[in-house]
Parts: sequence; C-alpha cells; structure tokens
Amino acid sequence: MYRTATCGELRISDVGKAVTLAGWVQRSRKLGGMTFIDLRDRYGITQLVVEADAPAELVETATGLGREFVIQVKGEVVERSSKNAKMPTGDIEIRVNTINILNKSLTPPFTIEDQSDGGEDLRAKYRYLDLRRNPLKKALELRHRIAHEVRNYLDSKGFLEIETPYLIKSTPEGARDFVVPSRMNPGQFYALPQSPQTFKQLLMVAGYDRYFQIVRCFRDEDLRADRQPEFTQIDCEMSFVEQEDVLNMFEGMMRTLFKNVLNVEIANPIPRMSWYDAMDNYGSDKPDIRFGMTIHEITSLAQGHGFGVFDGVPYVGAIAVPGAAEYTRKQLDELTEWVKRPQVGAKGLVYIKLNPDGTVKSSVDKFFSEEDLKAIAAAVEAKIGDLVLVLCGEKRKTQTQLGVLRLEMGGRLGLRKPDEFAPLWIVDFPLLEWSEEDGRFYAMHHPFTAPKPEHMEWFNSDKKEDLERVCANAYDFVLNGNELGGGSIRIHEAAVQERMFEVLGIGKEEADYKFGFIINAFKFGAPPHGGLAFGFDRTCALFGGQETIRDYIAFPKNNQGRDVMIDAPSLIDQVQMDELCLASTVKTDA
Amino acid sequence: MYRTATCGELRISDVGKAVTLAGWVQRSRKLGGMTFIDLRDRYGITQLVVEADAPAELVETATGLGREFVIQVKGEVVERSSKNAKMPTGDIEIRVNTINILNKSLTPPFTIEDQSDGGEDLRAKYRYLDLRRNPLKKALELRHRIAHEVRNYLDSKGFLEIETPYLIKSTPEGARDFVVPSRMNPGQFYALPQSPQTFKQLLMVAGYDRYFQIVRCFRDEDLRADRQPEFTQIDCEMSFVEQEDVLNMFEGMMRTLFKNVLNVEIANPIPRMSWYDAMDNYGSDKPDIRFGMTIHEITSLAQGHGFGVFDGVPYVGAIAVPGAAEYTRKQLDELTEWVKRPQVGAKGLVYIKLNPDGTVKSSVDKFFSEEDLKAIAAAVEAKIGDLVLVLCGEKRKTQTQLGVLRLEMGGRLGLRKPDEFAPLWIVDFPLLEWSEEDGRFYAMHHPFTAPKPEHMEWFNSDKKEDLERVCANAYDFVLNGNELGGGSIRIHEAAVQERMFEVLGIGKEEADYKFGFIINAFKFGAPPHGGLAFGFDRTCALFGGQETIRDYIAFPKNNQGRDVMIDAPSLIDQVQMDELCLASTVKTDA
Repeated sequence: MYRTATCGELRISDVGKAVTLAGWVQRSRKLGGMTFIDLRDRYGITQLVVEADAPAELVETATGLGREFVIQVKGEVVERSSKNAKMPTGDIEIRVNTINILNKSLTPPFTIEDQSDGGEDLRAKYRYLDLRRNPLKKALELRHRIAHEVRNYLDSKGFLEIETPYLIKSTPEGARDFVVPSRMNPGQFYALPQSPQTFKQLLMVAGYDRYFQIVRCFRDEDLRADRQPEFTQIDCEMSFVEQEDVLNMFEGMMRTLFKNVLNVEIANPIPRMSWYDAMDNYGSDKPDIRFGMTIHEITSLAQGHGFGVFDGVPYVGAIAVPGAAEYTRKQLDELTEWVKRPQVGAKGLVYIKLNPDGTVKSSVDKFFSEEDLKAIAAAVEAKIGDLVLVLCGEKRKTQTQLGVLRLEMGGRLGLRKPDEFAPLWIVDFPLLEWSEEDGRFYAMHHPFTAPKPEHMEWFNSDKKEDLERVCANAYDFVLNGNELGGGSIRIHEAAVQERMFEVLGIGKEEADYKFGFIINAFKFGAPPHGGLAFGFDRTCALFGGQETIRDYIAFPKNNQGRDVMIDAPSLIDQVQMDELCLASTVKTDA
Repeated sequence: MYRTATCGELRISDVGKAVTLAGWVQRSRKLGGMTFIDLRDRYGITQLVVEADAPAELVETATGLGREFVIQVKGEVVERSSKNAKMPTGDIEIRVNTINILNKSLTPPFTIEDQSDGGEDLRAKYRYLDLRRNPLKKALELRHRIAHEVRNYLDSKGFLEIETPYLIKSTPEGARDFVVPSRMNPGQFYALPQSPQTFKQLLMVAGYDRYFQIVRCFRDEDLRADRQPEFTQIDCEMSFVEQEDVLNMFEGMMRTLFKNVLNVEIANPIPRMSWYDAMDNYGSDKPDIRFGMTIHEITSLAQGHGFGVFDGVPYVGAIAVPGAAEYTRKQLDELTEWVKRPQVGAKGLVYIKLNPDGTVKSSVDKFFSEEDLKAIAAAVEAKIGDLVLVLCGEKRKTQTQLGVLRLEMGGRLGLRKPDEFAPLWIVDFPLLEWSEEDGRFYAMHHPFTAPKPEHMEWFNSDKKEDLERVCANAYDFVLNGNELGGGSIRIHEAAVQERMFEVLGIGKEEADYKFGFIINAFKFGAPPHGGLAFGFDRTCALFGGQETIRDYIAFPKNNQGRDVMIDAPSLIDQVQMDELCLASTVKTDA
C-alpha cells in the first residue's frame, strides 16, 4: 500500500491523522522558507507543506521536486490557516515528515492544467499527459458512468449482452470495410464490422429476444472532422416487438441516463416528428428543437410578383429571426456571403426587416408592396422587430440550406444552450433514396429495414414514384441537433428481403454471396424484430456538453487516421508480408 | 406487442387469464383429436392445446405447424389434467383460440434439443439454430451474468472501464499480430491488439489508477484445440499498489463472482503457492489442487541400486495413486504405453504396488529390496493399497510428465469433480526463461514485468545463472488446473525497462521503434503499478462446468480460423485490393 488516503478525500474532520499520500506534483512554491506543494491524483489535489524548520534533507528534497514528479509523502493532517473554499480539500493541508520520490519526470511539454498551453498536435503525441488534465479525466469518468448505467438499465429489462465477432466477412455495401488478411487462408480476408447488424439479427433468429452490446465498430472512410475510423455503439435488438415497443424501451433508457448521470428530467414523453415534417419545418432530419424559428414555405406568396429569381424555382422558404430587424446592411451582406459559401450553397439571400416603427424594409422592395411583404411575414409568423430570411430553389436543397441558416442564427442569438437537453424521435422515414447519379435506389437506413406494412403495395410496385413514397418503420433519436441513434423494424420474411435486394439492384448471386447466410437464416423461423444503435462517443460528448467526441475517447486518431502517440499505422516486416502472401504496390522513390 | 407473457412465466395462479404468447414450435402431436404444441422462447416452454372441437380452420392451422415455425397464439390459461412437474410451466396449458403464423420454417437440419443429433460442423454452419438449444442459451446467459457481476464489483471499487483502441501498432514480440492495411496511409498497417497491455500502462502514467476493460484480443496463432483467433479478456491495472493489493482486490472479485453467480463459497483466503513448489509438487504451473497425489522426488532413494535407468539421470520422481494397487498387468502395460505417447513423452514407467496383504510388488524388484521399495513408498506417502508410479529424467521435464500422469490418474479416479472449485494463486515466478534454441532469454510473462526489488543485484548481473534466479512479482490465478488469469507488478522506471530490453537482447533501436512511446511515457512520472488479466471465455466455461470455451462464445471460429456460418475469411474485390495498394502473391492454378 503506497497510500492511506487519496488526494481528494481528506477534510477538516481528519485533522490530527497521520496519513500517507501518493501522487503527482502539480506545482510547488516557496513562501517565507516554507515549501508548498500541490499533490494531485485522480481524486483531487491536496496541499502539502514542508515547514521552514524541517530537517535540511527534507527541505532540500521538497525544493528539488519538479512538476509531475511522482512522490509518496507521510505527514499529519493539519488545519490550514488560509482556507481555499474552491477545493474540497481546501480546509486542510499535510505537514510533511518524509518525501519519497517514486519517479522523477522530465518537464512536460505543456502545462497540465484545465486550460493547457499545448497545441492539439503536441497534446495528441503526449496523450498520456493530456489525459492527466481535469477536463479529459471528467470526460472518461462520464463515459464509464454512462456505460455502466446503460448496462444496468438494459440488464434490469432482461437484455443479454452478447459479444459478436470482430473478424467477419467483407460486405461492400455502404461504407468501406477495414480488412484483415488471413495467414491461415492465404489470399482471403476478414473484415472488421461496420456494425454487428447481421449478427444481432441472427441472434434474433436464434431466439435471444433482448440483445445489446456496447461494441466497437469500424469504417474506412475519408475522415471528416470529428469522425473516427473506430467508434463505439450501444447496439440493441428486440424480438416480438413493434416500433412502439422499441421507442418506449429506449426512451426509458435515455430518461434513466439523463436522470442518473446528469440529474436532468427530459420531456415525457419525448416528442415525435415525422421525417417529412422535420425536413419541411427544420430543413434537417435531426432538428435542434431547443428553439423555434421554423421554416415556412412561401412559394405561392413569393411568386407572381415579377421577381424572376423566385418565379423560376419550385420552392421559396423563409425563417423569422426574432429581434434581428436591427441587423445592419453590413451584417446582412456578411450573412449573404455566409449562405453563399459552398458549405451552405445558397445562390443569394433575400431579407425582410420588420422595423420596430412598423415599417417594412426588404431587399426586394422593388417587386413587393409593403402589404405583400407583410403577408409573407405573417405566413412566417414574424413579429415586429424580427428579420425574415428567404431562400429559394429546389425544395429539399433549399430547406436544408434554411436549416443550416436557422442553426447559425440560433447559435448567434444564444438559443442553443449546452445545458438544455431537447430530445426528439424522428419517425416515418422514407424507405428508399433515389440516386440520380447512380440511377438506382439506395436504402435510407440499410437493406434490412422493413417497409411499413401499409405501404407494401407501393413496395411491390415497379413505379419509381410508388417506391419513393414507401415509408419505413424507422426512427432516429435526436438530441440538440445531433443524431444520437437510430434503428428500425427489420424485414423478417425471406420474400420481403429478396424484394428489397431486387429494389436495390442487388442481384440474386450478389445477394447470396454477400448476405446468403442471413437470407438462409431467415428461412428457419425468423421472428418479427427491430432495434436500434446509439453512437456512444457522441452520446458521451453531448452529455458532457461538448460537440466534439475526441476528448471522450481515451486514445483517438487524428484526421489522417493516425495515432500519433504510438505512431500507427506503420510499416511491417517483410516476413509478415510474406506470411500473409501479400506484396505492396506502393511506388517508392527509392 | 406480440405477447402478453413469455413462454416461461405462466403458473397455476394465472389460470383463467386471457394471454397472447409468441415463440417457436418445439414439437406438436395429435392425441385423440386434440393437438398439443410445445411453444418455446428464451424463457421456457409452454404447452398449447387445440381442442378437438375447435373451429376446423384452427385445427387445420395447428395440424399444419412444422418444427420451428414462429407463431403467435391467443388463448386462455387452463389447469392441466396431467401435470408435468419437470417444467416450471407444467401445471398449466393454453387453450388456444387463434394461431397466427408469423413465419414458417424449413425443417431444421438437426434437432433443437439439449442433445442434438447434429454433428459439430453442421451445427457450426447453422449456428443460429444451434444457439436455440438450451445448453448454449444457458452458456450465453451465464456469460452475460458474469460480465455484469465483474463490472458491478469493479465499479464499486472505483475502477473505470476505459476503452483502448483496436487499430494499433504491430509489435512482433510474442505471438503473431493480425494486421490491417491502411488505405489512407498506403503501404502501412495497423495491428489488432494481442492485449491492451501498453495502453493500460499508459493509462497508469496518465493517472487513472484503477482501470479495467472487458476487451477483445487477437492472436494470429496456429490454432490448437480450444484456441480462438479472437478472445475476450477482463483486463485490469492499478497504480500505487504492491502485489498484495492486487491479489486482495481480485481475490475479492473472484469470491464475489462465485458467490453471486454460482452461490459457491470458495476458500478464504485463496491458497498461494510458489512457482517452484507448483513445479516440484504438481509438475505444472497451474496445478489442479482438488486432489492430492503430489509429486515426490526420490532421486537419492532410487539411485545406487544398480538400476542404470535411474542411475543415469539427474532426477527421479514419483506419485502415489490411492487404492490403485489392484491395477492389473494389462492396465499397467496400457499406462506405460500411455506415458510413452509423444504428448507425454516419458521413456518408460516404473511401478510399485503396495498390496493389501502388505507385500510389495514392483517392476524393478530385481534391483530393489522390499525394504528399499517401502522406503520409497514412505517417501511418496503411499499407503497400503496404493500404486506408486515412478518416472525419471531431466528434472523439470520429468516433473511435467509426472504432472500430466497425475492429472490422468486423478481423472480416472474421479477426483476432478466439475462442481468443486479449488482456486489458487501461483506466485514468485522466474522473471526470465532461457531458450537453448535461440541462445537468449525470453520474458516469462512479458517484457514489462518487474523483477523483485530484492533480486535487482542478480538482474543487473551479466551471469546467466544470476539472471536465471531472478524472480518476478508475477502471479497467476489458477482454477481446477486451468490458468484463468495472470499478471504482475510492472516496471515503472525507465532505467529498469531499458535493462530489461538489454537482457532480452532487444537493441536500443529496436526497442525505440517498437516501444518508444512507452519508454518515453515512463520518463514523465510513471507511478508504481501492476495488474492482471483474466481469460473471460475460459472463466465462463469453467463457471459453467465445461472445459471447452466454444459454447461460451456466440459465434466462434473453427480450428482453421474460419467462421463457417458466414463463410469468412473470403476473397475481396480487386478494387479493394487496389485501394489498399496490395497484391496477392498466392499462386493459383488458373
């Protein structure tokens, strides 16, 4: 035992006790011959004091301590003369008798403080030092707590956590697989799972009617900001259920998490919104409903006034930004440039100011009378003092642009409060998405999602417009504008699954090759089933009030998929390549 | 909701209730016009009855049901006339009003019974059907329960579960890595972790003083029986601890598991045995101490009697098999052949029978007087009626052979009871193992295991005999002759780690390349730390009273590393190969 107490637990009631502490030197300072040392461990910081009249050797040791030295001290808990109310241990300090240096430390390349002076790259390289900082420690503690609460909840509901394999088969539908060459089966490869989707469905076929797993998944994508090649899901599936059962079960889980982890009561019931309403009113399938500012279609009001830009498009939509009528010309110009950035992609921006004095000012005054403009403002539910922002073009595209603009304005107005949690279910997704580029349908969720029973006639039709309006019993869990999870009721009948592959243009041979085992499994008594998966990294980040996941993963990779701390990936020995019957085709400059 | 009750929960007190059940048709039979159906789900079996006078359509549906059809039935709970005390639901049956066939099933290729008629290969191919069988369901339920109890225990002790990455760096020390080509870093590879060893040590450097993880690990080994290329560990590490702290913590975990999962009280405290004693007395570093029959060295008693076989070797050892003096000549011949098999490798077998009449009979009567033989018998603690079995040769090799013979005799005598649990800590392992073949030392555990502080002088010596007697603060958890886990106190000082690499013949450059990041991390204030890992698959199997792990893994691979259900590994597209800048060097017959 290197310690009798942690650095976070001693209080005024412990005064007089002889204790042994161990930890890291956060800082030390001399003050009138006395040496004060802040000793840190996972649990907190305790102040140590070496008196001026302590043995010379002890004073010398204390004086020689550098930042991040690991030490063990013995001493007595004494009451502080100047207390620090900000620290849980701030009423006491340790009058030190002995210091045992357990390990020295080089000077760390950045400060181990809540706000470090180290840049992102440097901190990534020395991740083990960055992880000593309080915000990261709190993030990993939160992650542990959430995982534990998830498991307790699901265990209490009769779910079994069942581990599915990581070395599986490559099924190049969707994102790219990471693959693993097999030495024992030369020329062949395993794939790392993008999700345990097929295995959890096989578990349903096997009769394990309540399955879950907190599981790593892998996707070899070109990394966008805040994507990781490996990520963690809370993966769940249930049998003999309808959509309502699944939503209730996981609404209960989320409610329990918010209550037990954050002591927050979320809406009960969690509101539901159809995908169509979400797109029409929020321009997003993951709306942030912490604030209003919804999108309104004004096509009929906007057209027929001789303004060619509006007249030549299928859709005109607008939002009313509360209290923003005072926006200056300069601010409006900046906003116009902002929506024209490729990330938003609008052609231009029309505004209508509802001035506090009752007048109306717009960038299209030339074409619209004050009455026309007021009619539009009324349709958008704008009030005096608001700023109406109008975009136009192809319907879904314009709605999406308005959705992005809405989030931006919500952010600028401080309406997206990090400590407010507004969960939402999105339901009634279209089953299929038509790709103009590829001239084929893709599954909006994945090829195992079931069409709604009442839409089977359309599903079996050969007409594109019929197929386009088939809805799925699919659902996404959305929190504050982020999709945290999603799932669906699955296809459990072999004939429906075969039709689905047909619709997706996956030939029988290809389907057999890629999904033969699951198609076959469905012939042996597959029960009705459905489930969902939550992105665990993002769930943790949002619970922590952060938008980026990187601090909620102990050892993340950078945007090039590299772990710069261990320097992976890396070259491997030729012997290994030979054993795997592989040759590199990379051209070198040698 | 497809059901109001499961197939395992209805009792006599539910008689009269209208219920809806869903599940699989286990079997159905006609009896005097009535149709009886056993309906099965994860929770049990409930008997359904369709009366002879039921509507014709219902009778017809019931008659047409095949094995493993998925059905939903509505009916009334009624008391059975002939009760079945073996079934929890055996007092009742459901008088069925409606049957809704949710899914048909092809006839399964083997019976879904506790004892199936399917061979291993067939059941592996249809694993999702095999998983419907009771023994496998119980195995996976047990696995879930153990994992949950482990997490609850460690959480209650302040451990954090922290996920470490799966895409790491290849470090070809020890077993072979599975590697993953990186598309974004052409020509480079990730490796899948053989264990999170370095990451958990980095977490200790980072100050997370109580870490654990139930985590998948990967080893590309030629598969021996009951080895899997991917397997699961309970991986743990603690800081500011000595060996005693680690042993106490995980002794507590095991005690809690046995109590909460099996309601078994294990020995308190769990006995400890030095590696040397284990080898000397049991011929194994994982002794089965459910029975005695320990090994005794009889070299001095055996030599000098003119029996050349004994006189020419450094070691003679023996065990006393209780009550086996009645072994016939034939049985002894068979046993002699058994020890000469290459799996045991003995040259021959000498026996001494202590006959019930007080006489002694031995295969070496010619060289030993009755008194000599009785002296040997006394040294081996043999009693009247026992059979003494003697092997000789090189010391550790012979002890190992005697250990294997001891287990065999224990098995034959029924002394290895599956419902008896005899845990044991093995301690004081040698730090290093000399390989005659390679002319170098290998780490007995791994290169991060610390030498005992009191052996540092030997560790710093250049003499082989000094290095050979250095012990480690390493420990294994052994249960019924199986190593379930092991670990050690780690090296936390950079200088000691460098010396370790030197002893292992790992050059500075190689060490920097392979372990640079951890050597570097240790320079920034590494705390004293240690930990261990348990093999989770085997833990589950032994708790379930089984020796093989395959049934405790939902989707295991076969001895060729194949998943025959999904047919993985498999060929991948040329496009994928090209993207990864890889070419196969496999020669084909095309």
